[in-house]
Amino acid sequence: MKVNLNHQLNDPNCKGVEILSIGTELLLGNIVNTNAQWISEELSLLGLNHFRQSTIGDNSRRISKLINEISSRSNLLITTGGLGPTPDDLTTEAIAKSFNAELSEREYLWEEIKKKLSLSSTNLNSSLKKQCFFPKNAQIINNPRGTAPGMIWEPIKGFTILTFPGVPSEMKAMWKETAFNYIKKNFSDGNIFFSNTLKFSGIGESTVSEKIDKLLKLENPTVAPYANLGEVKLRITARAKNEFEARNLIKPVKDELRNEFSKFIFGENNDSLSSVLIKELIKRKESLVFAESCSGGLLSSSITSIPGSSQVFKGSIISYSNELKQSLLNIPENLIKKFGAVSEEVAEAMAINAKEKLNSDWSIAISGIAGPSGGNKEKPVGLVYISISGPNDHITNIKKIFSSTRNRLEIQRLSVNVCLNSLRLILLSKSK
Amino acid sequence: MKVNLNHQLNDPNCKGVEILSIGTELLLGNIVNTNAQWISEELSLLGLNHFRQSTIGDNSRRISKLINEISSRSNLLITTGGLGPTPDDLTTEAIAKSFNAELSEREYLWEEIKKKLSLSSTNLNSSLKKQCFFPKNAQIINNPRGTAPGMIWEPIKGFTILTFPGVPSEMKAMWKETAFNYIKKNFSDGNIFFSNTLKFSGIGESTVSEKIDKLLKLENPTVAPYANLGEVKLRITARAKNEFEARNLIKPVKDELRNEFSKFIFGENNDSLSSVLIKELIKRKESLVFAESCSGGLLSSSITSIPGSSQVFKGSIISYSNELKQSLLNIPENLIKKFGAVSEEVAEAMAINAKEKLNSDWSIAISGIAGPSGGNKEKPVGLVYISISGPNDHITNIKKIFSSTRNRLEIQRLSVNVCLNSLRLILLSKSK
Repeated sequence: MKVNLNHQLNDPNCKGVEILSIGTELLLGNIVNTNAQWISEELSLLGLNHFRQSTIGDNSRRISKLINEISSRSNLLITTGGLGPTPDDLTTEAIAKSFNAELSEREYLWEEIKKKLSLSSTNLNSSLKKQCFFPKNAQIINNPRGTAPGMIWEPIKGFTILTFPGVPSEMKAMWKETAFNYIKKNFSDGNIFFSNTLKFSGIGESTVSEKIDKLLKLENPTVAPYANLGEVKLRITARAKNEFEARNLIKPVKDELRNEFSKFIFGENNDSLSSVLIKELIKRKESLVFAESCSGGLLSSSITSIPGSSQVFKGSIISYSNELKQSLLNIPENLIKKFGAVSEEVAEAMAINAKEKLNSDWSIAISGIAGPSGGNKEKPVGLVYISISGPNDHITNIKKIFSSTRNRLEIQRLSVNVCLNSLRLILLSKSK
Repeated sequence: MKVNLNHQLNDPNCKGVEILSIGTELLLGNIVNTNAQWISEELSLLGLNHFRQSTIGDNSRRISKLINEISSRSNLLITTGGLGPTPDDLTTEAIAKSFNAELSEREYLWEEIKKKLSLSSTNLNSSLKKQCFFPKNAQIINNPRGTAPGMIWEPIKGFTILTFPGVPSEMKAMWKETAFNYIKKNFSDGNIFFSNTLKFSGIGESTVSEKIDKLLKLENPTVAPYANLGEVKLRITARAKNEFEARNLIKPVKDELRNEFSKFIFGENNDSLSSVLIKELIKRKESLVFAESCSGGLLSSSITSIPGSSQVFKGSIISYSNELKQSLLNIPENLIKKFGAVSEEVAEAMAINAKEKLNSDWSIAISGIAGPSGGNKEKPVGLVYISISGPNDHITNIKKIFSSTRNRLEIQRLSVNVCLNSLRLILLSKSK
């Protein structure tokens, strides 16, 4: 799941940008560090060389030591956290200490803070004053969403620090208002990174990687595989002067991949199996219903999570009990007795009856054993039967045995993926 | 949200644990680093001194350099990422290089990988073999959920590395099965952190925090609030010699909270609204069905995600279209015409008819506008009607208008929470 950025990563002496997240709550695992991810994405857009991230607690000596370390190997440091009014907010002080600098008060900032707080009618509190102290030659980053400003400071030649609060909404507002343009002007070489992601279903990450060994070694654009549960993605990233040039670099690689993997590629970027399927059914003016047993509503839910799904999805019967398989879907009791509720015969009858009863063009039925209990030697946990019924008496039956390492939710999710991808492939083969 | 851990954080010479997350996708901002947060939480539970986290890309030389750096200041390093089969998976190699060690093949691991993959009937592929190479004296961490094992390796005296894949489900399974006990035995100082989490529904985070100002200032145990969508948690954490002592520290705080918030607290630790509700219905030997419209299967899915739900949950009708509301749930056409599908009248009829038709003790119906389109001035996006029907002609009708800042999925999720919590409260008031 990696990107080869040899043109920038292979020279260990090349200086770059680092991110430092400050806060004991991060080390305790109380919160997820979404700030680092957001800033990383912004740095990518700016085409900057970003090699390393660190996280440290609210301890002045440790922060100072780490800042010194970073100043010896990088040009630009972005910090988040520790700018607030509480005794644990130590970032500005600790940074100043790293370079033996003094902090002095900016009086106009205190006036601004007082103004901001009377606006939001909070009580004034002297500890807030701390937020007005900065090194003498630091430039202030205005905080349009809170009281704690940040700074842009070059304590030694060739090393600049930008500080931001840890509150994501404040950090992002300050980044957009001030930092983005400052960094673009002073640190970007004019190039951007631009990405396109191709999404695969029905094929494993290692099979994809092996077939495109050559592409994975490209330098611009780079090609990187990722895998989620039941889904593989290839991200193609180009470094170029602008989006147009980047798209031109990406296009031949994308064409080659589409040629090699054709039907395995279901979409790009924000597409999901559900959204692609809905789009196709809207185009064909065909409707869809489900009869769910072991997936228990997850198949319906994955379709109805997409805006506009009501144009093609009419509804489902979730017949979790055998009683409801009989009463709602008219599955004969003796069919269940003879083959079991988890069988090709019952899944097929569920699909055919759901299509008829719910008056739809297509139906998918699913019956299986999601576990953890309910399995036996003949029918183990992970056994799933899927049946797809469509126009002109179309029937496709699928049997899957998911690995015994999979838990209940994974078996449900993987089953749903197979349902959606199988219908997608059937529609492709029956293009209207 | 800071915790004062001065007893461990103030000595900058004290050695400790570090986490290193490896993957260029993290530096590019493609994914959020949830692994570091999860491991941090686990290290807290083990009472370990954890001072620093780093993130680095898939570059062998940079990884080696950083590992050397960490080995000079820490006792224990946890790495995630870079154990897979692709050429960019470099972690084991890079770590070995840091200490000039050779990698050699463990043949039994290759047999295991082949076994695992034939189970899920994927094609075998030689690049997978890379995952069988480790330093000679490394101990293997079995991966019960995937093909890439990790290792426990002490390359130099006083410095141990544990490696994990980046896939969260695999990393967590390996941690629980092997790493947790290994670290506890070899690195814990005898004190542990032990936590109990109380879970709230139907009350906001700021209301909870305001009422327990005093408790939030406690030092042992500490009390920390968290909020998810529609759910508030209070985590009570004690540091003590053992679990028994920790529980004794936690108990009076928990009692005070249970006293203050009583019915708002629905459970503890791993409880969810669904699991609590299922447990209660099993106790009462009562069954449950749903008639879902705007939630589109999410209510059913949240119940069937819980093992054992089939003991009480019989099934649902997802009547997404008005046509199916009529044909499957016998909602009169003129009722829909008169009041609209999103109305108290239709929701109530859906609940009553579902209960009867699906032959259940309880039923919940839900009809609303999840958006982004379909709303108007009278019936805006976010308007949801819920109706609960139970024994002895019990009916509860609920109207909710969720904020216009909520998106489709949030409205669906919040609606599901209200359904589950409302039935929970009804059952509480009708204790058997």
